[in-house]
Amino acid sequence: MANSYGNHLTLHIFGGSHDAEIGMTLEGFPKGVRLPEAELLAFMARRAPGQGPWATSRKEPDIPVFTAGVTEEMTEDGKVYVSDGTPMRAVILNQNQRSGDYASLADVPRPSHADYAARMKFGDTVDLRGGGKYSGRLTAPLCIAGAFCLAYLRSHGIAIGAHILAVGAVKDASFDRLDLSAEKLHAPGLLPFSVLDPEAGEAMRGEIECARMAADSVGGSVECGIIGLPVGLGDHPFDGMEGRLSSILFSIPAVKAVAFGDGFDFVTGYGSTHNDPYGITPDGRIVTTANHCGGIVGGMATGMPLIFSCAFKPTPSIGAAQGSVSLSAGENTTLIIKGRHDPCIVPRAVPVVEAAAAVAVTDMLLDERIYGD
Amino acid sequence: MANSYGNHLTLHIFGGSHDAEIGMTLEGFPKGVRLPEAELLAFMARRAPGQGPWATSRKEPDIPVFTAGVTEEMTEDGKVYVSDGTPMRAVILNQNQRSGDYASLADVPRPSHADYAARMKFGDTVDLRGGGKYSGRLTAPLCIAGAFCLAYLRSHGIAIGAHILAVGAVKDASFDRLDLSAEKLHAPGLLPFSVLDPEAGEAMRGEIECARMAADSVGGSVECGIIGLPVGLGDHPFDGMEGRLSSILFSIPAVKAVAFGDGFDFVTGYGSTHNDPYGITPDGRIVTTANHCGGIVGGMATGMPLIFSCAFKPTPSIGAAQGSVSLSAGENTTLIIKGRHDPCIVPRAVPVVEAAAAVAVTDMLLDERIYGD
Amino acid sequence: MANSYGNHLTLHIFGGSHDAEIGMTLEGFPKGVRLPEAELLAFMARRAPGQGPWATSRKEPDIPVFTAGVTEEMTEDGKVYVSDGTPMRAVILNQNQRSGDYASLADVPRPSHADYAARMKFGDTVDLRGGGKYSGRLTAPLCIAGAFCLAYLRSHGIAIGAHILAVGAVKDASFDRLDLSAEKLHAPGLLPFSVLDPEAGEAMRGEIECARMAADSVGGSVECGIIGLPVGLGDHPFDGMEGRLSSILFSIPAVKAVAFGDGFDFVTGYGSTHNDPYGITPDGRIVTTANHCGGIVGGMATGMPLIFSCAFKPTPSIGAAQGSVSLSAGENTTLIIKGRHDPCIVPRAVPVVEAAAAVAVTDMLLDERIYGD
Amino acid sequence: MANSYGNHLTLHIFGGSHDAEIGMTLEGFPKGVRLPEAELLAFMARRAPGQGPWATSRKEPDIPVFTAGVTEEMTEDGKVYVSDGTPMRAVILNQNQRSGDYASLADVPRPSHADYAARMKFGDTVDLRGGGKYSGRLTAPLCIAGAFCLAYLRSHGIAIGAHILAVGAVKDASFDRLDLSAEKLHAPGLLPFSVLDPEAGEAMRGEIECARMAADSVGGSVECGIIGLPVGLGDHPFDGMEGRLSSILFSIPAVKAVAFGDGFDFVTGYGSTHNDPYGITPDGRIVTTANHCGGIVGGMATGMPLIFSCAFKPTPSIGAAQGSVSLSAGENTTLIIKGRHDPCIVPRAVPVVEAAAAVAVTDMLLDERIYGD
Repeated sequence: MANSYGNHLTLHIFGGSHDAEIGMTLEGFPKGVRLPEAELLAFMARRAPGQGPWATSRKEPDIPVFTAGVTEEMTEDGKVYVSDGTPMRAVILNQNQRSGDYASLADVPRPSHADYAARMKFGDTVDLRGGGKYSGRLTAPLCIAGAFCLAYLRSHGIAIGAHILAVGAVKDASFDRLDLSAEKLHAPGLLPFSVLDPEAGEAMRGEIECARMAADSVGGSVECGIIGLPVGLGDHPFDGMEGRLSSILFSIPAVKAVAFGDGFDFVTGYGSTHNDPYGITPDGRIVTTANHCGGIVGGMATGMPLIFSCAFKPTPSIGAAQGSVSLSAGENTTLIIKGRHDPCIVPRAVPVVEAAAAVAVTDMLLDERIYGD
Repeated sequence: MANSYGNHLTLHIFGGSHDAEIGMTLEGFPKGVRLPEAELLAFMARRAPGQGPWATSRKEPDIPVFTAGVTEEMTEDGKVYVSDGTPMRAVILNQNQRSGDYASLADVPRPSHADYAARMKFGDTVDLRGGGKYSGRLTAPLCIAGAFCLAYLRSHGIAIGAHILAVGAVKDASFDRLDLSAEKLHAPGLLPFSVLDPEAGEAMRGEIECARMAADSVGGSVECGIIGLPVGLGDHPFDGMEGRLSSILFSIPAVKAVAFGDGFDFVTGYGSTHNDPYGITPDGRIVTTANHCGGIVGGMATGMPLIFSCAFKPTPSIGAAQGSVSLSAGENTTLIIKGRHDPCIVPRAVPVVEAAAAVAVTDMLLDERIYGD
Repeated sequence: MANSYGNHLTLHIFGGSHDAEIGMTLEGFPKGVRLPEAELLAFMARRAPGQGPWATSRKEPDIPVFTAGVTEEMTEDGKVYVSDGTPMRAVILNQNQRSGDYASLADVPRPSHADYAARMKFGDTVDLRGGGKYSGRLTAPLCIAGAFCLAYLRSHGIAIGAHILAVGAVKDASFDRLDLSAEKLHAPGLLPFSVLDPEAGEAMRGEIECARMAADSVGGSVECGIIGLPVGLGDHPFDGMEGRLSSILFSIPAVKAVAFGDGFDFVTGYGSTHNDPYGITPDGRIVTTANHCGGIVGGMATGMPLIFSCAFKPTPSIGAAQGSVSLSAGENTTLIIKGRHDPCIVPRAVPVVEAAAAVAVTDMLLDERIYGD
Repeated sequence: MANSYGNHLTLHIFGGSHDAEIGMTLEGFPKGVRLPEAELLAFMARRAPGQGPWATSRKEPDIPVFTAGVTEEMTEDGKVYVSDGTPMRAVILNQNQRSGDYASLADVPRPSHADYAARMKFGDTVDLRGGGKYSGRLTAPLCIAGAFCLAYLRSHGIAIGAHILAVGAVKDASFDRLDLSAEKLHAPGLLPFSVLDPEAGEAMRGEIECARMAADSVGGSVECGIIGLPVGLGDHPFDGMEGRLSSILFSIPAVKAVAFGDGFDFVTGYGSTHNDPYGITPDGRIVTTANHCGGIVGGMATGMPLIFSCAFKPTPSIGAAQGSVSLSAGENTTLIIKGRHDPCIVPRAVPVVEAAAAVAVTDMLLDERIYGD
């Protein structure tokens, strides 16, 4: 079903951009997982708008309120949420809606938005203000689930981190696929603009500012790394790591491509240059001496860093006049979109990619508990 | 579960490379769908080995035997299979196994194959002869299901076709994303080597022959187009067309990236150049006047041709000596793989991509019957 | 997952007895189904407490508030809810909680309630005030979904109705299994106390009053009939009508047995007396001339009235002192339960059984749309 | 889907009565579970026909052949199957089919069999020889899965056993609900006719012989007990133990009612007499001092013996002439069923009930691994 994800976990996301509240329920999550409130809020803040000139100036504080599934513990370092094993439920109250900005769009679908398809599917009554359930705002509840999953994974020795790989033509450095640590993975997320190479970040912000000044938008990509996965995690053919990760990654609005390891660079590769030979380290561990496959073979983890990237299309809401049609009049028209929009969604998407990956990996890990029993 | 795919349909694939038989069951498939045996066999033959110098010389005739779910009707044009609405079941008997070729591999995992991860996951007893359940051979049962789904979709005005987009550095032309017909989609599949541009095909065969002569292998990509989809097919966020298609596409061995529409080219794109404006055709249809998004927005079909591509890594089995480890001895060693292998898997993968897409779209279409009731 | 039901539909129920709100989401429900608000409220009222001396005097008005998935239409006869095809979401605000009444129960589990098992499963932090998520109160959201499903089924010629079959030793008449109409099915539900035979109802109320006066409780059973099912609806072996109906019926707190047709009376029956022969009516319809099997063979509907009954245990909350244990002290103790409780839950359970059956049948009907395509 | 059961496990059953083979696949089953071949065959033999005058004289040896998912180990005590963690697959070759016996039934549906409903659902082409996929024969593959699950559960301290509770008016003793051991549970299964009280068994065989002599059939019931369940196993509302057990129990042909604990006897019970108080044993364990609820509250195990019973209708195939209709002629007719049939299916159903319960409990146990992580 469209609003639910997972095999062992069931993550269910509800609400729309202009509803009174949005939120999530998470069933099947282990009990006893501890998540400091400060960590949750910091994670949510990375996704929230209003962080800098590269993001929309809308203010959405995104404070999750838990109504079930967690207990609260007061510690010296502040409040800690502890999962209690029952279905978890959290809501975020919507504020600062400016429905008026969208009202004129009702009849004229915005190019490259979900409007037209949603209207053909559900009819005139579907509520698309602010994007309705198609809004990127619904990635906020995904981040709540993701924050808990990241905490669960950390306690199992698994770390996940992502960074902006490219904005327009500007590229960041890539994660080292053979030598990656939790510290390296988390470093970009500690910066206000999540990159490995600060100079590349500077140039990216320039790209975004140019787009913003031109009332335009620009695309980009995110690279994500995962370490600590047990060898063999995943399956084949239908529940492989690539399939399960991509399935949730494509739920992030604007993601249009997902690549594992060398991805499309494999097209011009040879077996002799793009295979990953095995070798033994001085301390006796079996590793691959290259990692073209991004840590996955046969749908299963090799134990090497798992590396994937995903491409984001430019934010479809731009200031320029665009061709569209009046559905009621049945004729061509021109559309000018008002409101506040992100000239580039990629910086805010970084924690969302981490959250999506964390949910998928947690789900797989809980599934896999059947082996070796 | 790893061997099953689908929401409304359940496609279940069973068997391993060196088992007596492999096959599939398909539950939830509509009754009354007619598939001429000749069409099925022709489809299977496109995937089967032994077609030309670009493929392994192994002979696997891949004749499906149906044990449930279809009735056979004799017509002037030969036998026709008709689905009867009960779970369908078909097996393919394995022949021509040369287990000896693989016996020496038991202890030394082949680079970029599933061997090592599978052994760590399932232990020493897992049967990996010929790749076991990880073998590309298991795409044959997928093609049986795909052939029936293609017949079902055809009767609903939906056509699917794919072609080799690239082999190494050689590129084929691309499908026209604004003007695509069933005829154009099916044209490549009628050729022994499925391309749009015969000259590109010639060059690709040269690339493959070079790899073969060098006992090496080469990667490539496949592009697939789908027309006739109802506007709004798919959903959001978790059952979008990208997610459901990618989930089954990554079940095809060697697929490492999936891209919809402009895919990674969106990274360097702008909203002003990469949005898809709407317009009305002279005969009153609403179309997009560009199709960067590949026919999908908000996880739903726009009604324009759906276009995606996927990257295949080079066949990991190559003739050169490769570094590996002896699992029993715990030391580095060198591995030389014998046996007959495809220097490039991409030509044989074209119908598999069509089959996978057909299964996913049929599943979505059956799911969607709830709307507009 | 424990809070979700359905194949094609996904009904998800959330909240606990003492949460701020309880509610449901319903995915996959067809669009365009019309449900007058008055009909919904009347249906909810049949389940709500406070209807008469046979029920708890607590007041829970149970007014559903829809936050997604429906549009509201104002007609001459009042408001009508119309499903819009997107996931439906409704909440009921909890009021009139008297947590104090339950506070003393925290350490001493109530006999035949979920307390002890829930505490062993989830630990001390699980919130069991008022029964938490185990409370019968959670059948209110089930009734919201049920009301919509009943409206959907009605538009497909399917009617569902139930009545109190027994309270203690007092029995109502049974539905006529060969000649049943929507009018007959709905008649009991129009009464304040849902029976076929008013005299039996009078005697049942006497039984309940006796139990109430004795601070005791009494068990009972409900019979439900369904007409208009397409012949062949259901499946075998794992998705048969008996299995899918029982699976949701056992989610109603206090249901401990489910029987189809003759149920346990089959034990003493013979094939010669308990088979259902086929015959043709004067107007050419094929019917069974008996209906021992309750309208289901091989997990599928025969087209005759579907008849089942379910047994309810006595409300476990009674006024008498009961043996229990102090979990913290690890010693035997005596428990006296205060608060307001139903001396017999069966009268209020009648619409819940109808709702559960309606959800199950709607789910099956939507699943079955694959046949005869 | 109709042929698959399970959340964490996926049990898939395939084939029909007159197919060349029937069988099962089982995904998600833990690796390393050991099942001696002798134990498997003995378990299968309890279900197989031809054991005595109370069963059909057909011979179906029911020898499972494993094609995947197990390794074979030779020990002093004979062959042992060991699950290897990959999907398990076993087939049973059909033999001794006498299709001719059924050929005349094609047009005239047998009363209380699935024939008519299946034909209306799937059309004339559905293969119903020997009952097709509706045949009780398909419980043989269920027993293969059940034997493995019983072995898995045994290694987790869980034992399951069943016995014939009633045949016609003759009743066996019941399991002791407060004091039950693996030995007591397994005792009936060691007898050729599975009862607790040999005298009752004698009388039951008399009942069955009477029915057989009269070319009639008789109904009955089976009681099943389970010990060793962790307190809290199960869930609520939708994945409770009653719901999950009943869902698979109703997949056994002829089961028409399922009751937990006191079942329908709760109808005439009072809270004061039918609640289960808690108490502490001398050695400090918390128990219930009665067990009316059959070891389940709130859908969860209480830790006391889980007790349920299910009613079986009389075998619908009887020798007497029965009313039916000719579907082709559209007129009433009389049907005489030939062939060899069980005058009472209950004795052979005992291991099937154990198998179904074992599959359900194993699935729940694997699901529950998420808690307390």
